[in-house]
Amino acid sequence: MDDNSIAALNESLHHADPRDILATLLPLLGHTALSFSGAEDVVLIELTSKTLKKLEPALAMPRVFTLDTGRLPAATVRYLEVVRKHYALSLDTLTPDPDEVRSLVAAKGLFSFYEDGHKECCAIRKVAPLRKHLAQFDAWITGQRKDQSPTRAEVPIIELDSSMAAVGRRLIKVNPLANTSSAEVWDTIRLFDVPYNPLHDQGFVSLGCEPCTKPIGPNQHEREGRWWWEEATQKECGLHYKSGNATSE
Amino acid sequence: MDDNSIAALNESLHHADPRDILATLLPLLGHTALSFSGAEDVVLIELTSKTLKKLEPALAMPRVFTLDTGRLPAATVRYLEVVRKHYALSLDTLTPDPDEVRSLVAAKGLFSFYEDGHKECCAIRKVAPLRKHLAQFDAWITGQRKDQSPTRAEVPIIELDSSMAAVGRRLIKVNPLANTSSAEVWDTIRLFDVPYNPLHDQGFVSLGCEPCTKPIGPNQHEREGRWWWEEATQKECGLHYKSGNATSE
Amino acid sequence: MDDNSIAALNESLHHADPRDILATLLPLLGHTALSFSGAEDVVLIELTSKTLKKLEPALAMPRVFTLDTGRLPAATVRYLEVVRKHYALSLDTLTPDPDEVRSLVAAKGLFSFYEDGHKECCAIRKVAPLRKHLAQFDAWITGQRKDQSPTRAEVPIIELDSSMAAVGRRLIKVNPLANTSSAEVWDTIRLFDVPYNPLHDQGFVSLGCEPCTKPIGPNQHEREGRWWWEEATQKECGLHYKSGNATSE
Amino acid sequence: MDDNSIAALNESLHHADPRDILATLLPLLGHTALSFSGAEDVVLIELTSKTLKKLEPALAMPRVFTLDTGRLPAATVRYLEVVRKHYALSLDTLTPDPDEVRSLVAAKGLFSFYEDGHKECCAIRKVAPLRKHLAQFDAWITGQRKDQSPTRAEVPIIELDSSMAAVGRRLIKVNPLANTSSAEVWDTIRLFDVPYNPLHDQGFVSLGCEPCTKPIGPNQHEREGRWWWEEATQKECGLHYKSGNATSE
Repeated sequence: MDDNSIAALNESLHHADPRDILATLLPLLGHTALSFSGAEDVVLIELTSKTLKKLEPALAMPRVFTLDTGRLPAATVRYLEVVRKHYALSLDTLTPDPDEVRSLVAAKGLFSFYEDGHKECCAIRKVAPLRKHLAQFDAWITGQRKDQSPTRAEVPIIELDSSMAAVGRRLIKVNPLANTSSAEVWDTIRLFDVPYNPLHDQGFVSLGCEPCTKPIGPNQHEREGRWWWEEATQKECGLHYKSGNATSE
Repeated sequence: MDDNSIAALNESLHHADPRDILATLLPLLGHTALSFSGAEDVVLIELTSKTLKKLEPALAMPRVFTLDTGRLPAATVRYLEVVRKHYALSLDTLTPDPDEVRSLVAAKGLFSFYEDGHKECCAIRKVAPLRKHLAQFDAWITGQRKDQSPTRAEVPIIELDSSMAAVGRRLIKVNPLANTSSAEVWDTIRLFDVPYNPLHDQGFVSLGCEPCTKPIGPNQHEREGRWWWEEATQKECGLHYKSGNATSE
Repeated sequence: MDDNSIAALNESLHHADPRDILATLLPLLGHTALSFSGAEDVVLIELTSKTLKKLEPALAMPRVFTLDTGRLPAATVRYLEVVRKHYALSLDTLTPDPDEVRSLVAAKGLFSFYEDGHKECCAIRKVAPLRKHLAQFDAWITGQRKDQSPTRAEVPIIELDSSMAAVGRRLIKVNPLANTSSAEVWDTIRLFDVPYNPLHDQGFVSLGCEPCTKPIGPNQHEREGRWWWEEATQKECGLHYKSGNATSE
Repeated sequence: MDDNSIAALNESLHHADPRDILATLLPLLGHTALSFSGAEDVVLIELTSKTLKKLEPALAMPRVFTLDTGRLPAATVRYLEVVRKHYALSLDTLTPDPDEVRSLVAAKGLFSFYEDGHKECCAIRKVAPLRKHLAQFDAWITGQRKDQSPTRAEVPIIELDSSMAAVGRRLIKVNPLANTSSAEVWDTIRLFDVPYNPLHDQGFVSLGCEPCTKPIGPNQHEREGRWWWEEATQKECGLHYKSGNATSE
């Protein structure tokens, strides 16, 4: 898919429903990975699964992966299994390189992110395993939404991901929920009885690693529950870059 | 205070700030009780306390009471004590009549409300102790807000409370937060570092008795965390009636 | 039952199994109350219930009561209901006098026991409601065991309870588990699938009011989880007195 | 150290105090790793640290490692950091090989151990990383105790570990607490104010991975909180073998 096609698709799908976005793009993407964080991005699995049933000719489910950082809440791991069984998925768990984890911990301990920022830990536990995994794919689909964070206000429907692409390769990134609101996501989850992470019933909205996620109080923005010791504009783990600026997860 | 005065005050204070409402009404109310549920209605204590410091001539703090039903969450009881100490209050805890509790439990057990509705239990654990307590007062102040529930959409700033008044007496009810939104209440709590119930950081928004309160999920209305097995229009415990219709707590 | 009979029974039942103790004494006691704290003294209900089925002529179940102090853990209240239904009991919940609670809290707040000892609060929330209740009975049965606490090392099987007796009346107290060990109690619970308080699976052994009970760690005595800010020899709430000395609950 | 020396040391240290065992053996072991599970084996770090201060000539602290399986309770990870700081340790966290984890999860999901036993998961998350790590060492020290499990009833003070040794190398294993009881371990922890895992105050005695550990009830053996769906004689993860039989974790 060349740059002009991407721009044209982005333009034509700008106001489209996530299901229409998926129906249009899934046949065009080639070997595709679908990102699942164990949070409300489960709707992406639900919508993809439903969309695929209507497509002709039939298309395989993208490979679903999750970044199993080794620091996920136990409830999230149990939930991953619930989703795996519910959708009969083969789930790729991406875990970090043992040498990199050991070096970081030996040098700085297990909670260095509270001192000097989450980027170093995310680089080892999320970004590196993700980049290595995506090297095998032509495209990936994410649950990013514009309303999640100030850093995601410009998320497009479809883009070229130069940050995660392997050397000499092109990688497409699709964000079918870019224009969907949190309220719409939750309406979908409740309407279709999609299984959701029980932490969402304990005050957690945005969900990530256990030490880097906390419940939010009434009338707080979901992003206040993530990396709360850092500036709002720094709250990306490096999975989602745009022109050199962090824009997601 | 006669009915015309009440109507006039209600009219003139309709768009007033809660502080102005309190500054205007506190000197007019006589012997006054202030209701505190252990939830975000703590702002009422904060605002009353601040308002009183500016009033001349000086006025005593209304007697703060709480309905200690015997079924409050342990975290709420601890929080009541935090508030008591923070504001140096003398707190009136209203507990239910032992004979009434024993009769209900002997007949129907400890969770009959899940079977035949919360009204019977609330009548014993909340309404009767409240009515008995209010018989000593000329007025009471509550934290009711219109945005809390469909049953509270008509809450006035000031009203005659014929439902709670002792026989042959008039009782005024003041709702200084009637037109205040949940977002405004929480802004106040955070801006002035008002101590709040830690359950609010575990997904609880509306708070009441332990068996009758649950955390809500993302994008749910706060009232979905109360008496969830009953119809929305029945979700009042009987503390707040208006012309024969339940309208609050 | 005169003092000699009590002494003789105490002597003859000293090494008896709790079932034999109950089988012997139940027909002799008259109108009897059975104490249930919501903890492992559930075995008393189990054993009494089983024993009654074998007695001829048939005898009614003693009235089971619980001291519902208003400060019980929510899990204990749910467990009381489980037991009530499991044994089809009519449960008497004894709650404290509202005026006494309000006076104590108005003067000293909700956690005064951490400052000046638990006796004052227990007197209001446990002892007074118990004494009032027992005035209607000829005897009561408790789950006291010698191994629970240094203050219970002398618990007899049967005794005259002069501390709880109403003026001018005699009250018998029976402790069928006096010589039973904690291990035996738990063997019975597990062997007969007796429902038990789920707090026992969270590190709690001895159980009472929420603010006055905590889980114990490995190799700690159960009494270290109760009133831990006080001396071991003071750890009675006043339900169980012997010759002027506190000896129980 | 030849087989005769090992046998002799085992004989002579059989009744020795753990401190004396450590004082005798530490100078003889060469490059040594010390195993720390995040549970009460913290006493091993305490005792080793104290013993080293008295040794002349001075000896370096063994390298402390922990098996960070990716499924530890969050509380245990926080506790590892507390211990790391308290003893100023450089902690080696051994995490599993990403490809092995991904293959297992893709084939069987995240909780296959509940279906076909914990051995396969332990082999990937514990045994393989441990064996790889120990290849760099001459000896390792563990917190195994005879009273932990029927499978550990024969644990010696010092032994040749043929199961974990790299090909063509000898590996010594030392178990200084072999003859120490749980009660003695906890006495030491409390006497010396050794920081301990807060899960021990929530009913957990033996501690391991989150899905494979549960609190135990009153009067249960600690091993009932581990792999409870399997036979007691199978409850080893493969870290500790003796003559082909599993004997520990």
